Amino acid sequence: MSDTGNKHNDPTCPTPISDYDTIQLAHGSGGKLTNDLISRLFVISFNNSILVRQDDQAVLEINGMKLAFTTDSFVVDPIFFEGGDIGDLAVNGTINDIVMSGAIPLYLSCAMIIEEGLPLPELQKVVQSLQAAAKAANVLIVTGDTKVVNKGKGDKLFINTSGIGLIEHSYDISASSLQPGDQLIINGTVADHGMAVLTQREGLSFQSRIKSDTASLDGIVKKIMEAGGSSVHAMRDPTRGGVAATLNEFAESSQVGIEIMESSFSIKPEVRGACEMLGIDPLYVANEGKLIVAVAKQKADEVLQVMRSDPLGSESSIIGQVTDTRPGAVIIQTNIGGRRFVDMPVGEQLPRIC
Amino acid sequence: MSDTGNKHNDPTCPTPISDYDTIQLAHGSGGKLTNDLISRLFVISFNNSILVRQDDQAVLEINGMKLAFTTDSFVVDPIFFEGGDIGDLAVNGTINDIVMSGAIPLYLSCAMIIEEGLPLPELQKVVQSLQAAAKAANVLIVTGDTKVVNKGKGDKLFINTSGIGLIEHSYDISASSLQPGDQLIINGTVADHGMAVLTQREGLSFQSRIKSDTASLDGIVKKIMEAGGSSVHAMRDPTRGGVAATLNEFAESSQVGIEIMESSFSIKPEVRGACEMLGIDPLYVANEGKLIVAVAKQKADEVLQVMRSDPLGSESSIIGQVTDTRPGAVIIQTNIGGRRFVDMPVGEQLPRIC
Repeated sequence: MSDTGNKHNDPTCPTPISDYDTIQLAHGSGGKLTNDLISRLFVISFNNSILVRQDDQAVLEINGMKLAFTTDSFVVDPIFFEGGDIGDLAVNGTINDIVMSGAIPLYLSCAMIIEEGLPLPELQKVVQSLQAAAKAANVLIVTGDTKVVNKGKGDKLFINTSGIGLIEHSYDISASSLQPGDQLIINGTVADHGMAVLTQREGLSFQSRIKSDTASLDGIVKKIMEAGGSSVHAMRDPTRGGVAATLNEFAESSQVGIEIMESSFSIKPEVRGACEMLGIDPLYVANEGKLIVAVAKQKADEVLQVMRSDPLGSESSIIGQVTDTRPGAVIIQTNIGGRRFVDMPVGEQLPRIC
Repeated sequence: MSDTGNKHNDPTCPTPISDYDTIQLAHGSGGKLTNDLISRLFVISFNNSILVRQDDQAVLEINGMKLAFTTDSFVVDPIFFEGGDIGDLAVNGTINDIVMSGAIPLYLSCAMIIEEGLPLPELQKVVQSLQAAAKAANVLIVTGDTKVVNKGKGDKLFINTSGIGLIEHSYDISASSLQPGDQLIINGTVADHGMAVLTQREGLSFQSRIKSDTASLDGIVKKIMEAGGSSVHAMRDPTRGGVAATLNEFAESSQVGIEIMESSFSIKPEVRGACEMLGIDPLYVANEGKLIVAVAKQKADEVLQVMRSDPLGSESSIIGQVTDTRPGAVIIQTNIGGRRFVDMPVGEQLPRIC
């Protein structure tokens, strides 16, 4: 959610909002237009030192206790997809935003906006997924809300989950804390979730069905924190906008350069095939069970090993490093030996993926 | 949100969900069908001791500190109405749910689901209302989320706010804590918000336009708590389902009887006129700046006086009392001298009022 730094979304110099501007799908993409909207409108209006950090969770101090607080609405279409549904996605997504601060997730709220006419058995199935995902991560869903909108004024089911976690460490884990020399590690294959939802929505069939990677990262983050301690500088789950958006946010927020190697990313063959067929760069596709960790070089191998020991990290790999050249830029070393910029996504590649 | 106690929503004996059941507008009304859905589906699935209390906020204990945590999604149609808009409604509504536990509101999240095509100046106006309402109640909006759905798959703007408050008292303020003898006090006129939204949506015009009562109740609750202390047994804001729903929830949760006097309610002439014309009982209409307090008899006058000293309580009045007869029932003494039951609302009187 970082400000991308051009003058059009510099909070100190906002572009005036024209009477003719309207919201486009790309404003929800997690890319440049989302950040533009956040910077031009929300950060300026809600101006406070907690929000302005623009991490995926707010860090609150109440009576000396540190809490992580986060919110996410889920509008994925379709609500059931290979590997999950809107229910476990809503729980895992919010837990992941909490744990990216190194917090222990404790409590979730769950608010539903249901379209009139939704079959009750479908709602029941989603509720069971919500509960199963919460139970698996040992968090409680403690409060909720139910709204119903007229048929044609919603789309089956939208779910908001907000969550609270407890931060027991004293490190400054933030997109703005990366340091030159840090190694960047990802816990497995990229682009699974986005391509699972997209291919299912568009009715595309491939030899093997693409499965979402939706999962709660609380367990693997616990191991990373234990092994890495204060050497863990930043963690973020590359959801909307994919790895490209997350790395650009890291580079921009910390004013560092980032260099990655194309060869270091794992992509499932069926996901690669679908991306190639549709002309989509997998680095821009949402993941829902992945995280990128920036960790100081001397601890990188240790962190990589504990990540590989976790069921959600067996394919973990170092994808690149942080540099002190070209602050704000992400550069990829391609498989054919070239080097190019990985830009922040601009338009809406994949609407309603989460 | 209480279980209304008939066997169909006894959590220990749920009605099986049929394959042919679908969600109706009335499932979002705040009345019997909402409670039925909550009891049959959510409480059973998310089963935990915090949720099962079914107050409008969860009370959490983290490292010995007590927090109130609540969530609400707002789908009001139209998004701008006389006296407010979806922005201040979303902030005030969640603050009110927090303070009904006697907590001090601290932090809010704000998640938006925006329909493609919404004019940006309208969004800006809502954001300014959100911030103005938050500032007025001295709370910070610290984290957010933005999703965009295709045109025709949403309705302009839905907002979820979740909130955290700090509970510094040690009283058990809950819908299940009413005791016979308690006096029930309301802080002013009823039915303003619901009738403001309804008449505007339907394009009805009256001699004077009906204005929503949307307001944050943090100030008046602070006074109530200071004056009432442990004599404050329950507080709830009568939103969806109106005064009738709140009183039925009180009676049911505490297994007490409630007797109210029709003559004790203030209703603005234009609101009364609109209700009469449309055949709507004002006790079933949503309020957004009102609360009902149940307070032990010996402190009732003192609490009433401090409420009347508050700008949001100048028309406060005692509307009735808690009895030990007919547990679970709400009975009204009508102006023409009769007595009748005030039932939990069943169908959807006023959809999308908040």
